[in-house]
Amino acid sequence: MEESWEFLRQLTREILDGGEVLTPGEKVIDFLHPEQLEERLDLNVSKEGSSREELLEACRTVIRYSLKTCHPMFLSRLYKGVDGYGLGGAWLTEALNTTQTTYEVGPAFTLVEKSVIQQLRTEAVGWDKGDGLFCPGGSLANMFAMALARHRACPEVKSRGMRAFQPLVCYASDQGHYSTKKGASFMGFGTDNVHIIPTDDRGRMIPEELDLAMRQDIEQVSYLSYFSLVYVTTVYLQLSTTCSEKYNSIQIFYNSYVVYIKTVAQGKQPLMVCATSGTTVLGAYDPLEPVGRVCRAHGVWLHVDAAWGGSVLLSRRHRGLMAGLAEYADSVAWNLHKMASSPLQCSLLLCRHETILVVQGLLFKCNANNAEYLFQEDKYYDTQYDTGDESIQCGRKVDAFKLWLGLKAHGMGGMEVLVDKAFETSRYLLKLVQTTEGFRPVLPEFECTNICFWYIPPSLRGLPEDDHFWNKMSKVAPEIKRRLVMEGRMLIDYHPITSKSMVNCFRVPLHCIPVPSAKDMDFLVAEIARVASDL
Amino acid sequence: MEESWEFLRQLTREILDGGEVLTPGEKVIDFLHPEQLEERLDLNVSKEGSSREELLEACRTVIRYSLKTCHPMFLSRLYKGVDGYGLGGAWLTEALNTTQTTYEVGPAFTLVEKSVIQQLRTEAVGWDKGDGLFCPGGSLANMFAMALARHRACPEVKSRGMRAFQPLVCYASDQGHYSTKKGASFMGFGTDNVHIIPTDDRGRMIPEELDLAMRQDIEQVSYLSYFSLVYVTTVYLQLSTTCSEKYNSIQIFYNSYVVYIKTVAQGKQPLMVCATSGTTVLGAYDPLEPVGRVCRAHGVWLHVDAAWGGSVLLSRRHRGLMAGLAEYADSVAWNLHKMASSPLQCSLLLCRHETILVVQGLLFKCNANNAEYLFQEDKYYDTQYDTGDESIQCGRKVDAFKLWLGLKAHGMGGMEVLVDKAFETSRYLLKLVQTTEGFRPVLPEFECTNICFWYIPPSLRGLPEDDHFWNKMSKVAPEIKRRLVMEGRMLIDYHPITSKSMVNCFRVPLHCIPVPSAKDMDFLVAEIARVASDL
Repeated sequence: MEESWEFLRQLTREILDGGEVLTPGEKVIDFLHPEQLEERLDLNVSKEGSSREELLEACRTVIRYSLKTCHPMFLSRLYKGVDGYGLGGAWLTEALNTTQTTYEVGPAFTLVEKSVIQQLRTEAVGWDKGDGLFCPGGSLANMFAMALARHRACPEVKSRGMRAFQPLVCYASDQGHYSTKKGASFMGFGTDNVHIIPTDDRGRMIPEELDLAMRQDIEQVSYLSYFSLVYVTTVYLQLSTTCSEKYNSIQIFYNSYVVYIKTVAQGKQPLMVCATSGTTVLGAYDPLEPVGRVCRAHGVWLHVDAAWGGSVLLSRRHRGLMAGLAEYADSVAWNLHKMASSPLQCSLLLCRHETILVVQGLLFKCNANNAEYLFQEDKYYDTQYDTGDESIQCGRKVDAFKLWLGLKAHGMGGMEVLVDKAFETSRYLLKLVQTTEGFRPVLPEFECTNICFWYIPPSLRGLPEDDHFWNKMSKVAPEIKRRLVMEGRMLIDYHPITSKSMVNCFRVPLHCIPVPSAKDMDFLVAEIARVASDL
Repeated sequence: MEESWEFLRQLTREILDGGEVLTPGEKVIDFLHPEQLEERLDLNVSKEGSSREELLEACRTVIRYSLKTCHPMFLSRLYKGVDGYGLGGAWLTEALNTTQTTYEVGPAFTLVEKSVIQQLRTEAVGWDKGDGLFCPGGSLANMFAMALARHRACPEVKSRGMRAFQPLVCYASDQGHYSTKKGASFMGFGTDNVHIIPTDDRGRMIPEELDLAMRQDIEQVSYLSYFSLVYVTTVYLQLSTTCSEKYNSIQIFYNSYVVYIKTVAQGKQPLMVCATSGTTVLGAYDPLEPVGRVCRAHGVWLHVDAAWGGSVLLSRRHRGLMAGLAEYADSVAWNLHKMASSPLQCSLLLCRHETILVVQGLLFKCNANNAEYLFQEDKYYDTQYDTGDESIQCGRKVDAFKLWLGLKAHGMGGMEVLVDKAFETSRYLLKLVQTTEGFRPVLPEFECTNICFWYIPPSLRGLPEDDHFWNKMSKVAPEIKRRLVMEGRMLIDYHPITSKSMVNCFRVPLHCIPVPSAKDMDFLVAEIARVASDL
């Protein structure tokens, strides 16, 4: 073992002091195509193993050609780099190598998880009571919410399956994340039972359209049952007029058939709305108050996918974007590894119903299987602290500690300053793209810290903006991106915009850490103009 | 940021050189009850944040009262501690803070994942072609396999949901992991559609019972449809004799009803068998060859849950326990964070159908949603390397690199030596419990590296082994465990044994790292006898 610790010490020195990983130099990425990188990195695991120097060399190659997520010009994803607090928490978690299943294998981690969930639930969301769980990513957090909604509506689905119930429908906006559909596939709803709701010109779900969609679904009876009913009614009428002596018998027959049809082929049941706080591309916040009122009117679960935008809850100035959350939502998914910059992964699902210490809380009722080998009741401590059975996972990775350590370091006040700073710099960027020649924002107004814009290269400026123009425009962003990546100066992303016939625009999301600066934004705009000067 | 890196440097020094975490002293745990620990750890996140010294002090408290998973006397779980190679890989992964979604955000990690999956698939399992994915834990790996099986059988389930199909049934042994049932709840099968198969006296699934169960399920038509058919037939016969002039009309009516009943209320369809290689408690290996033949006869997907026992595939001496895997299985889940001692989590799902580079492989077909914002096709590199859409997750944590680095360090040959050593020490432990006074093994023969045994304390020895005796025996293991934990000498687990009316026995699973020794086993047996001398 001693040799392995020595390797660890040396690698750690290189990570901490070498600079490339945590405080990168000029390049955000030294890009190689797959076949080029394969030539430089010995991927094969040999029979006899590798020496310390060979391993360190492999790590150096990995570091050299990896994306430097701590670089200010890594601007392509909804996550970013780390600071020393978050990374310290992650490293200690890895070193202690345990799971979040029962209190005895992670006493401190269990308390930390419980505490940080409670504090965020009460102080950030505003729910006095409730439940919470860290999930392996926001997609699964959204699916766990679907499971909770389903369990509340049809608890027997756990034993009888989806087949025993009428079709359960989930609603999301056309700007919502694809995990609702992935969940619908995986969890047996079927994507046909995800009803997509139109959005307004800023990408926000239209509550009236949601209400309409629910009404339609409730009234809809399947084609098969309509057809059968019409057919049976015809035959019935025919029979009842000609065989009057057997009228009663036929009527019973008919009635039982109708009951059967109604049971088996009934209409759809609206189950859950997945509203979004901070959509992936445009950063739109669905209006939770009117959406919540529609949900309440129909008795439908309101889940809020705040994976990206949830961190506004840490800021008094910006939490208004999620007004209605505390009052109307049943659950919320919040990726603290996104805007709040905790290391990956840190996906929190909060639910307003019942507390985590109530062993029979909703998460538990929904997911528990009471495995005797793990959750024995004859233990020597209070087994209410064994939260493992609340998840569909068995061993759950410890995600709470790094978050807690980061929050503790910055303080809730410090986090607020960081969120406000990200918003402030985003507003600065929006102003830049509004005022710099060739740049054009996608949305007229500021929405969230993702700013979407086009760059109109010199050759296209002043041309009539017809199909030909936008067709050419769609190729601009990919080419600019390619050039910037090849130079290693910037990693920026582009996205097709639905309302503009899928024309690619740039999207720049800003995060808390490392703190984005106005200078970075000036650089970003200047670089795009520089590499695109001949386009 | 500089202050946060300084904190990280200091914390890292304490982890690396302090000794408690990686090379623990005498105590495996300094146990405190929740309310005691809450007093010593300041859980609250303040408004103004904490100083470096306060943060370090919090980390020291967490370290002090955490379980030391690297301690040789941590013997309670199917995972254990880390070595410097695995931890180094984990730390570098955390420092680079990226996901496994697209090539451009993790070029080296993408190639490493692809390569290590391919090497384990071909060299360890023996499949020339296939697909693979790291999953957040073995439970979800098993569920992903259920999704693959379901997708192969009913691809339309993705859009139409479980409601559109006859009940799909999964099979697992009574010793199998509870994740099959959790998956059945979560994925809409319903736990009623998990058919539990009896096991033999060593805890292995009985293939003849499996065959019988499938036959019964296929023949079973739901109660509702039987009832309806009988009822309708009776009425039909009555009508057809009395209303002869309308005979044709009634017959059409009846026939359409029968068709409807048959469509809606048909029998069950066997979908997947989840066989187990290394059951959680007894370490039993289901006989994959006869089980595989039954699956093949019925056209059913064979998934092997080798979360615990899969690492025998690394050893020529022990891989025979999984004979039949390469020939009969469709998929296998293998937690390399268990016996093979990669850091948590490292759950690999391998599938024999199609390769990962075939973008339209089964994982992709099953889970893809083609989100335009992430998986653009107008990229500047070969997007076949973007594997994100193969999972139901969006951002997937990088789990491959730490595994790869550990395998590279030890070499495939070195891993074989480590697996063989774990088996050798387990055999030594079995011999000890067979020959030491008061100890009694649960299984007559050696099965895997988990050894289950009872300790009969002095006061119960020689008594008739009736209900009263076993009732008392069931309280022995919890009490011994409690005493050992309170002293901090050992963390050992006990489990109710189904065949013995749920009497608790000890279960000691051995892993590759840190290498278990005969001396540790002597200590373990002596300690149990010591603390139980007055029982």
